[in-house]
Amino acid sequence: MYAIPLTESAELRPLEPWQDAEFLAHIDRARSHTDPWIPWATWSTDLESARATLQKYADKQAADAGRIYGIWRDGTLIGGVMFVQFDAARGNCEIGVWAEPAGEGHGLISAAVRYLMEYAFTERGMYRIEWWNSAGNTRSRAVAQRAGMHLDGTLREQSLYNGVRHDMEIWSLLTHEWQGAPKSA
Amino acid sequence: MYAIPLTESAELRPLEPWQDAEFLAHIDRARSHTDPWIPWATWSTDLESARATLQKYADKQAADAGRIYGIWRDGTLIGGVMFVQFDAARGNCEIGVWAEPAGEGHGLISAAVRYLMEYAFTERGMYRIEWWNSAGNTRSRAVAQRAGMHLDGTLREQSLYNGVRHDMEIWSLLTHEWQGAPKSA
Amino acid sequence: MYAIPLTESAELRPLEPWQDAEFLAHIDRARSHTDPWIPWATWSTDLESARATLQKYADKQAADAGRIYGIWRDGTLIGGVMFVQFDAARGNCEIGVWAEPAGEGHGLISAAVRYLMEYAFTERGMYRIEWWNSAGNTRSRAVAQRAGMHLDGTLREQSLYNGVRHDMEIWSLLTHEWQGAPKSA
Amino acid sequence: MYAIPLTESAELRPLEPWQDAEFLAHIDRARSHTDPWIPWATWSTDLESARATLQKYADKQAADAGRIYGIWRDGTLIGGVMFVQFDAARGNCEIGVWAEPAGEGHGLISAAVRYLMEYAFTERGMYRIEWWNSAGNTRSRAVAQRAGMHLDGTLREQSLYNGVRHDMEIWSLLTHEWQGAPKSA
Amino acid sequence: MYAIPLTESAELRPLEPWQDAEFLAHIDRARSHTDPWIPWATWSTDLESARATLQKYADKQAADAGRIYGIWRDGTLIGGVMFVQFDAARGNCEIGVWAEPAGEGHGLISAAVRYLMEYAFTERGMYRIEWWNSAGNTRSRAVAQRAGMHLDGTLREQSLYNGVRHDMEIWSLLTHEWQGAPKSA
Amino acid sequence: MYAIPLTESAELRPLEPWQDAEFLAHIDRARSHTDPWIPWATWSTDLESARATLQKYADKQAADAGRIYGIWRDGTLIGGVMFVQFDAARGNCEIGVWAEPAGEGHGLISAAVRYLMEYAFTERGMYRIEWWNSAGNTRSRAVAQRAGMHLDGTLREQSLYNGVRHDMEIWSLLTHEWQGAPKSA
Repeated sequence: MYAIPLTESAELRPLEPWQDAEFLAHIDRARSHTDPWIPWATWSTDLESARATLQKYADKQAADAGRIYGIWRDGTLIGGVMFVQFDAARGNCEIGVWAEPAGEGHGLISAAVRYLMEYAFTERGMYRIEWWNSAGNTRSRAVAQRAGMHLDGTLREQSLYNGVRHDMEIWSLLTHEWQGAPKSA
Repeated sequence: MYAIPLTESAELRPLEPWQDAEFLAHIDRARSHTDPWIPWATWSTDLESARATLQKYADKQAADAGRIYGIWRDGTLIGGVMFVQFDAARGNCEIGVWAEPAGEGHGLISAAVRYLMEYAFTERGMYRIEWWNSAGNTRSRAVAQRAGMHLDGTLREQSLYNGVRHDMEIWSLLTHEWQGAPKSA
Repeated sequence: MYAIPLTESAELRPLEPWQDAEFLAHIDRARSHTDPWIPWATWSTDLESARATLQKYADKQAADAGRIYGIWRDGTLIGGVMFVQFDAARGNCEIGVWAEPAGEGHGLISAAVRYLMEYAFTERGMYRIEWWNSAGNTRSRAVAQRAGMHLDGTLREQSLYNGVRHDMEIWSLLTHEWQGAPKSA
Repeated sequence: MYAIPLTESAELRPLEPWQDAEFLAHIDRARSHTDPWIPWATWSTDLESARATLQKYADKQAADAGRIYGIWRDGTLIGGVMFVQFDAARGNCEIGVWAEPAGEGHGLISAAVRYLMEYAFTERGMYRIEWWNSAGNTRSRAVAQRAGMHLDGTLREQSLYNGVRHDMEIWSLLTHEWQGAPKSA
Repeated sequence: MYAIPLTESAELRPLEPWQDAEFLAHIDRARSHTDPWIPWATWSTDLESARATLQKYADKQAADAGRIYGIWRDGTLIGGVMFVQFDAARGNCEIGVWAEPAGEGHGLISAAVRYLMEYAFTERGMYRIEWWNSAGNTRSRAVAQRAGMHLDGTLREQSLYNGVRHDMEIWSLLTHEWQGAPKSA
Repeated sequence: MYAIPLTESAELRPLEPWQDAEFLAHIDRARSHTDPWIPWATWSTDLESARATLQKYADKQAADAGRIYGIWRDGTLIGGVMFVQFDAARGNCEIGVWAEPAGEGHGLISAAVRYLMEYAFTERGMYRIEWWNSAGNTRSRAVAQRAGMHLDGTLREQSLYNGVRHDMEIWSLLTHEWQGAPKSA
């Protein structure tokens, strides 16, 4: 029902457990692309686990502790953005993103991230937005940089994936550093 | 973040537990008006109970068993619509509404109801939408009639409010009776 | 331990989860007969699901939100009656019944229903008893009529069974319409 | 609805949470009499705690782990009997009793205990019924003796009441020692 | 991290769910030896059930309702001791033990039991420690006797194992009967 | 029962919910000292909240997700150490500490931290230990430095205390950087 146009052919919409089959088909297209940087694909390997991933976010939203949004381009789910953590009492939250190959290179992820930042800072009064990315995940890092975020530090070998450990970067944007809502909003 | 314009000055948006204070102020304005027809006001008498009312719907949404939406006019919450019940497996749901005096007479409720019907029938493939109203609640009954619903029956003295029992009407609209989405959608 | 004689050879007794095997054997005899009007048989296809059906009612009874009773004839479980819903605070409840072929035509169901009505109205002070039956289920409808119930309405295509939708009738009896306890009580 | 006549003027019936007010009034009459031998009265001091005591047994019954029954004499609740523990898988259960002064001296408790024993041994196939009483509680001990139970042992100072410790006796009756159902059954 | 030396080559340590594989290997060595006296081995037949057994005690410890400790000899888990029940409010607890053949005959179990008794009586102020053993389990009975416990009674045929019923002995030690901490403590 | 000597007069022991009164008395002595750097004192203001703080860690331990240990000096609880987080599957954990004034300046905290590091790296095979401290909390920072930890980054204004935001430092030690167990172990 709700939808936010990102471009003429793409929009940001709620992504919920009843969309499990659509989500799984998308994750299957995204799998080799998102690995090894995020466990997203690892968690959603069949209809039941795909649904569980979405239910986890549905429950987070009910508790105001996180949210997830899908991006549809020409009617196909090609990625999304989420509040991985959302702590209104302390004013801190964390934004994350993912995409299949068809969802990259169009600025859709960056546009969606700006909507979440606007929501967090302006509508909810959050103070600090975090961004965590595996140090080798240059695409993710680039989104944080384009959003004007600041690198707070690198957690040495904090992430474990398939037996290999990776450094994890933490970026942040504070409310007074926020440049404002997307132009189209 | 999400919003659907109903008129130039009104829009339909998610209504969530963190908006408890805004919801309570609205219910206080609506109280004498909605009583005795719906228990809405009875359930929300202070911040804690107002929040509990919204949390109940947040939990329903997480379980895909119900949803609630607020209507803001000139920036003020003046009423709303909800899926009181939502059973995707069986194809049945129930829509309900409420408003404070400032929210009536502008067609906002009816417009919002059409969005929910469109969502239920078109986006979710529901078969039957129900509407329950106390037989004496002529405003609510009028909304059902304007939406083209059919009176299925009257449950004799089914409702109890402040020690007085009221007849309860059940209206329905079936998917093949649905005239389609709102023009502005 | 408890038992209420319905006739010389039949009695009404509690029906509990530990009687799962006896219940399943009965449902197997009742299956083709109760389908397609009630989902009872659909829910109880093996020992585990039969037990779950009875446990659901055991939990309802613990919460005073429903109850189930079996009817034994010549020592064999041949059907039963239940409070599908029981809302003491609002004074409303719903009675339902089921039987295998051997349990019909002896007036056992109607006799048992009268005991539940007496319990609801007299012992518990309920105001309104409901009865829901699929419009095509003439046997169920006949029980409601014999009990002196009034048809409040017909929910159009409200029920879904094996892909086919059925109208659902709602009957009611109010406390002042109740003719009193069974003669034998 | 269910009732088992114990004498012309007394009967055994289910005792449930909705009877909290009646139960509390009875416990108030029983209080000084049952103390210090059983914690029954200690647990039920107002409507909420009285209801919680009954709810505990309602939940036990739903789990087939215990049951409670009230005894009414001339329409007044004057005591009762319960399965404190009920372990069908292992064939063991424990019976307990309590009464207000007006409930003693009429053989009502002993008659009710026999119904529970009949239920346990015959209807449920239990092997061993236990009885625990504080060593100084001669009335309770006498009920166990009249029921033909055997003293298995005395747990030294096992019970604590108001800072004083008491010996606790354990009596038992095995299925092959059971003399059969009450004559009136 | 924590460890209490029992002898030069043996020590008492926490036994936790993450040690499931080590525990299962030990139970496999103990299985024929502990049967038929305790259900310990029956409950732990694979990694999942072994872990569940340990988790049950981890949860008991979190609730201060029981505890479990392993005994390692030359680095191998060969048995252990536990507070089967622990009721600080009433001052009662129950101690149990188990061992594989390699864990017997060295006094390790008896030494460990003394540490638990010291903990219960001195550190926690318990009043009564119980010991339950199947009447035919002479090894277990001997530990209770060596610990100076008193036989309170024998529950006739209380225990059920593989279809055979066994008498169950209850031993006890009261705080004023306690001879004090182990010499090495 | 378990205890690890840190010095001649101090030892590290489990700290559990039943020690709530002792813990609260200690926190009352530590309150002005630990504020504003850690919320420890803020969470434990009376017996119920002190117990809840310890219960939170008891539950974490049962889930192998965290642990807490107290330090007693001359028989008085003067501080402690904890695994704030413990994720065995990913090999990451976080250590935290607190003390009342009498607990500082004796090296007790640093000694206890080394025991936890030894436990994490050696006994549990963890890969990375984290340490979070408010940037202005120089005492805490010094413990991390003395333990040979490395500063991974500073989360700008991440912490909120009494309306003031503080930078938060994250330090880490990796398994191959660990110098080994405390000499006294």
